[in-house]
Amino acid sequence: MKTKPQTAARSGPRSECPINAAVEVFGDRWTLLVLRDMIFGDRRHFRQLQAGSEEGIASNILADRLAKLVEAGMLTRDAPGRGRRATYSLTEPAIHLVPTLAHLGAWGVRHRPTTPDRRAGAEWLLAAGPRFWDDFMAELRERHLGIPRPESAEPPPSQRMAAAYAHALAEKQAADQGDA
Amino acid sequence: MKTKPQTAARSGPRSECPINAAVEVFGDRWTLLVLRDMIFGDRRHFRQLQAGSEEGIASNILADRLAKLVEAGMLTRDAPGRGRRATYSLTEPAIHLVPTLAHLGAWGVRHRPTTPDRRAGAEWLLAAGPRFWDDFMAELRERHLGIPRPESAEPPPSQRMAAAYAHALAEKQAADQGDA
Repeated sequence: MKTKPQTAARSGPRSECPINAAVEVFGDRWTLLVLRDMIFGDRRHFRQLQAGSEEGIASNILADRLAKLVEAGMLTRDAPGRGRRATYSLTEPAIHLVPTLAHLGAWGVRHRPTTPDRRAGAEWLLAAGPRFWDDFMAELRERHLGIPRPESAEPPPSQRMAAAYAHALAEKQAADQGDA
Repeated sequence: MKTKPQTAARSGPRSECPINAAVEVFGDRWTLLVLRDMIFGDRRHFRQLQAGSEEGIASNILADRLAKLVEAGMLTRDAPGRGRRATYSLTEPAIHLVPTLAHLGAWGVRHRPTTPDRRAGAEWLLAAGPRFWDDFMAELRERHLGIPRPESAEPPPSQRMAAAYAHALAEKQAADQGDA
């Protein structure tokens, strides 16, 4: 990786490295957690995102990260009428984070302390693999971008994920009780 | 994702979500870039990491992130003799970030501005897929952890990556000149 002139680092991205380009957008834990909650938690409104935040995000941080995500083209914010709450939607780049988040979750399961139910969810999402991620991204495109997803006899991916998650959770808890 | 009492958020990870557990370790752009340079740039020493930093990392930030990564169990630092420079090694959790970084790079290629050579490298790494990532992680384990990798008639993955990268770069540049 060749070095580049310091002067060049002052404008635009600090390098053309794709990994750097990515982390410049969401190389911030709260930013990634907001995207996680919108993608997997289907939260579209400020209050949902704050009240539902498992990590207890502060409202000023949430407001700042939402504004930055809109500015970066990761989210769009509708212009609501007087007294109506704004709705945030994922853009294609944000939707396309699903495979990365699946791997990030799998890493967390393997190398950091988590709980059985959370392991079950993340392990299932990784095992489901690219084909499921594609289906889930198609569902997100339908919900956030209004792009109809291909006809399918199967229930929506989010429902399959929830069902598989409940099943994996039950199995995991039984197994853990067996261990104890 | 159920909310948890604010009090619980004060000690240890703020939640048991595997994605949160992961971003609490490297949910910081400089942290991830240091790991990127150690994994893909084979940098083991402070000076290499600073002088070679394409993003121009400041020495105080580099020192802080290296210390945090050691504390988090992502790196180990040897205890050098007087006047000898310290060598940093990746731990298994850090080595296991390869698939996540491959997806992060692929996302950056697709959704952020990059240069043809960088696109070529990241696109190749994603296309190489899980089997190559496993081989590359085995090479990293050998180099950083002293765990011999399985006998193989193939050259080391890092060499295959460099060769494929040079080839992809040449093709990409030819194609881009064709576009112009």
